[in-house]
Amino acid sequence: MHKVIFDTDPGIDDAMALLFLHHHPDIDLIGITTVFGNASVETTTRNALFLKREWEIAAPVAMGDGKAFNPMRNPVDWPVMIHGRDGLGNIDVPETIDLPVDPLPAHRFIIDTVRKNPGEVTLIAVGRMSNLAFALKEAPEIATLVKQVIIMGGAFDVPGNITPAAEANIHGDPEAADVVMTAPWKVTVVGLDVTMKTVMTRTLLDAIVEKGGARAKLLSDISQLYIDFYGRHVKDGMVVHDSCACAYLVAPELFTTRSGVIRVVSGGIADGQTIQKPDGRAFPPGNWDDFPSQHACTGIDADAVLDLIARTLARPA
Amino acid sequence: MHKVIFDTDPGIDDAMALLFLHHHPDIDLIGITTVFGNASVETTTRNALFLKREWEIAAPVAMGDGKAFNPMRNPVDWPVMIHGRDGLGNIDVPETIDLPVDPLPAHRFIIDTVRKNPGEVTLIAVGRMSNLAFALKEAPEIATLVKQVIIMGGAFDVPGNITPAAEANIHGDPEAADVVMTAPWKVTVVGLDVTMKTVMTRTLLDAIVEKGGARAKLLSDISQLYIDFYGRHVKDGMVVHDSCACAYLVAPELFTTRSGVIRVVSGGIADGQTIQKPDGRAFPPGNWDDFPSQHACTGIDADAVLDLIARTLARPA
Repeated sequence: MHKVIFDTDPGIDDAMALLFLHHHPDIDLIGITTVFGNASVETTTRNALFLKREWEIAAPVAMGDGKAFNPMRNPVDWPVMIHGRDGLGNIDVPETIDLPVDPLPAHRFIIDTVRKNPGEVTLIAVGRMSNLAFALKEAPEIATLVKQVIIMGGAFDVPGNITPAAEANIHGDPEAADVVMTAPWKVTVVGLDVTMKTVMTRTLLDAIVEKGGARAKLLSDISQLYIDFYGRHVKDGMVVHDSCACAYLVAPELFTTRSGVIRVVSGGIADGQTIQKPDGRAFPPGNWDDFPSQHACTGIDADAVLDLIARTLARPA
Repeated sequence: MHKVIFDTDPGIDDAMALLFLHHHPDIDLIGITTVFGNASVETTTRNALFLKREWEIAAPVAMGDGKAFNPMRNPVDWPVMIHGRDGLGNIDVPETIDLPVDPLPAHRFIIDTVRKNPGEVTLIAVGRMSNLAFALKEAPEIATLVKQVIIMGGAFDVPGNITPAAEANIHGDPEAADVVMTAPWKVTVVGLDVTMKTVMTRTLLDAIVEKGGARAKLLSDISQLYIDFYGRHVKDGMVVHDSCACAYLVAPELFTTRSGVIRVVSGGIADGQTIQKPDGRAFPPGNWDDFPSQHACTGIDADAVLDLIARTLARPA
């Protein structure tokens, strides 16, 4: 069993990834930590509690503090065009959910849970990297206690999506992402290089609802706004960014990766860009030296990943 | 006939490109302007005069002023491992060449020549973009008088060569390159995406010498150090970066290009990186807005380009 803490900003594709983690038989979801990004942290936390209630998820929800790692970073507008005013596709999520949040703040929940389960916890982070960076700042030794980190974010050999250089999750807190990428733990980055190839059509989503019942029906309702938005980029479907990161955990053989030190640009026109120095390439001494090699996904068997996601989402509750 | 000013820092692959321009029947080389990069501007100017003498080139040589566009940029070490202490493969180029340089500085030579030949001049720039940027600064209207600009430099969908982010020509004067890329003239960028695929083997170079006589023999002598250096990256051959830019002029059909605004990063770990916003991709308002779309080479028929270069270099004098 893979013990997973899911660091997330639900968010529509986050909701799909959450249902995947909840339903997959080899995954033990032991915590949900919330971060700002697709909406404010208040909204993403409310949404996590809503999905926990609707989908009967046991894992506690611990709330992030809503700040970027560098306090000089200005907050940005939330992408209400993509994720809705409520962060979940304008399905009229209740204002408040009558479930408690965990007493620990998100970064502290990560630290304590990792210490209690040394060598066993996988962190899957699909929003800003803020919580992970604050956890590392407060307790650097967790880097050696975490089993692995899987990130949805970044863009290596393809353009970004929030600027030509940068992907939105990384761009939203570049300093945090650089801390996470350069820490001495194993990081795999599932970025736009592979997620943009992984498009769930409305037809496939309908088939999942057919088999998956009420939980899948809620996911489908949430997803309609997002599919409409992605109509600009792909044909009648949704790019399942965050679920790709979860699929990597249980089926890494469906991905190809490139190893090398990864840094994140802070400031300037490339702000938030992820840049890898591929292992085996020689350069003069520079900013990529003396950091651990990490793994960037460069290829994906998108059909197989979509099939895995579809089968997992449609599993009986 | 293509009227060409060749802005260059010879430099070994520069020497090959110069012989290509001199020998190609559809090219009228009307000026050589020198810039720092592969060596100091004093050395590259001496080398241009040396090649002019040895190869009987009529075009005048105008000397750049050896400064980056932004005076705060520190000079870097010259790449003597690649181009030799003399900038031409350690063949013992004479200390001085008894030929005059043009009375005009390089950027002024460009301005005057372009004004005298409105709509007719192609600038092929294969070193730092400094001279072109100084020319634009002094006479912005030349942007509308130049026929086109072809640049060897940059790296779009592949790593750089001086850092994981940046290619050396652009990295050596990023502010100049940004001025050149964003000016209202037609720019085609022939970068590492295509040049690294274009490898002239020793065998092919030997065949060129066989047919091409003394001029080709000198080129081959110059090139041996460079081939030895590139042994780290490619098998027994040299990447003919600068000749690719010249080949583009006469055979653009051998390249595929992508259009979109190109910006150059200044400062930070991505210093000198070229980033294109592909036309047709939508982003929030940002740093790529309101500049002209330029052309980045993304593909090349390398065998055909090598054949074109080989045939041209081996032409009888």
